[in-house]
Amino acid sequence: MQRFKATIEYDGAGYAGWQKQNDHPSIQQSIIEAIHSLTGETQDVVAAGRTDAGVHSKGQVIHFDIEKPFELDKVYLGLNYYLRNKAIALLDIEEVDQEFSARFSARLRSYSYCILNRHPPSPLMKHYSWHVKEYLDMDAMQEAAQYLVGNHDFSSFRAAECQSNNPVKTVDLIQFDGGDDVIYMDITAKSFLHHMVRNIVGTLRLVGNGKWEPERVKEVLEAKDRTQAGETAPAHGLYFMEVIY
Amino acid sequence: MQRFKATIEYDGAGYAGWQKQNDHPSIQQSIIEAIHSLTGETQDVVAAGRTDAGVHSKGQVIHFDIEKPFELDKVYLGLNYYLRNKAIALLDIEEVDQEFSARFSARLRSYSYCILNRHPPSPLMKHYSWHVKEYLDMDAMQEAAQYLVGNHDFSSFRAAECQSNNPVKTVDLIQFDGGDDVIYMDITAKSFLHHMVRNIVGTLRLVGNGKWEPERVKEVLEAKDRTQAGETAPAHGLYFMEVIY
Repeated sequence: MQRFKATIEYDGAGYAGWQKQNDHPSIQQSIIEAIHSLTGETQDVVAAGRTDAGVHSKGQVIHFDIEKPFELDKVYLGLNYYLRNKAIALLDIEEVDQEFSARFSARLRSYSYCILNRHPPSPLMKHYSWHVKEYLDMDAMQEAAQYLVGNHDFSSFRAAECQSNNPVKTVDLIQFDGGDDVIYMDITAKSFLHHMVRNIVGTLRLVGNGKWEPERVKEVLEAKDRTQAGETAPAHGLYFMEVIY
Repeated sequence: MQRFKATIEYDGAGYAGWQKQNDHPSIQQSIIEAIHSLTGETQDVVAAGRTDAGVHSKGQVIHFDIEKPFELDKVYLGLNYYLRNKAIALLDIEEVDQEFSARFSARLRSYSYCILNRHPPSPLMKHYSWHVKEYLDMDAMQEAAQYLVGNHDFSSFRAAECQSNNPVKTVDLIQFDGGDDVIYMDITAKSFLHHMVRNIVGTLRLVGNGKWEPERVKEVLEAKDRTQAGETAPAHGLYFMEVIY
């Protein structure tokens, strides 16, 4: 039996998210079916992060096993062939040992959130960004973000349905970057609570548009109360970018 | 009667192109309908360039008249409101005098062509770039492109169905630019023959992948024979970027 690690890109727009479900197309199910088409085997596929409906990936990492012997290149080309009519593709692949887990071996995960910050809508970016019409001050957002970097109880930024045992997480980096009408927020941590990135973006928006002073984000964090923070930014602005093992 | 000039963005993926047709959704028809919803008037809409099916715009310019008096801001907001479920948006608007024509007053038009140049496909860029798997040498393409800059008979790069009286055009600039896995070709001219940009891209690819020496593009140009040039690059990599009046 061989174990494979692959990096995958997907356009989340047409999917109910990573996780397989009975009634809706999922990224996971599509890859399980592609492996079955290629090998005749029904294998589970494990991802570094279970992205929500609408969330995109440029760097999600998965692992899966294949019983029959297969050359690496055949797996890469074969799966991309069977995924050719899906919005999913393998970017690279390597063979790994049986101890490797795309989920549990991950040391750091990076997401990027894309905000379209201008008055007119963008048809080309509609499914790929959050359209925020009012001017956002990137420096103020960056200043406020620093209160979130480090080891904290992120209960204020945790979705009600979050299944994590522990609301304490360590955020290693939050970095704003932009140009023209687009603002990106890059964020890195070992792991995240459910909706944590989107809740951070929805909260920092209130600093960016001047409704809140940057210091208020510190108070919100310390309150450990979801109702104190801002709205959940929409899924379609979020990209899973990279995993470090 | 007021005449308006507007810059529009659109995602060409779901449209049969700019021009209104009986059976297929078009950009032009969608805007005519939006103007009708806002004003009750059926007005023609004239564009700087009649883009083909699948071609995108970040800077197409249009003009149209409205009989009833309307404030500029009302027209901008109203049309974007009625276009909100289409993949079309107004980016800006101004009032112009009756002599202005989006088509005939244009002095220069710029297009950009996007090539995804890597082996794995990109689900996120599938409808927004041409996927060319083999390595393309951007410097060689730039060198070959210089034979096309200037005033030439572009018959070798002209679609069979082109309705222009004259195959002689003046290309002011062709500039390649890129980063990571993406190559952009920017091209500027007063006007273009039908499929001219896409035929140039399809031809320069043969230089980029080493099948042709750059000098061969000069011979192809001088042959004035469409069969001598390369294939027509697909519409979904092409963006109408800017018009200068």
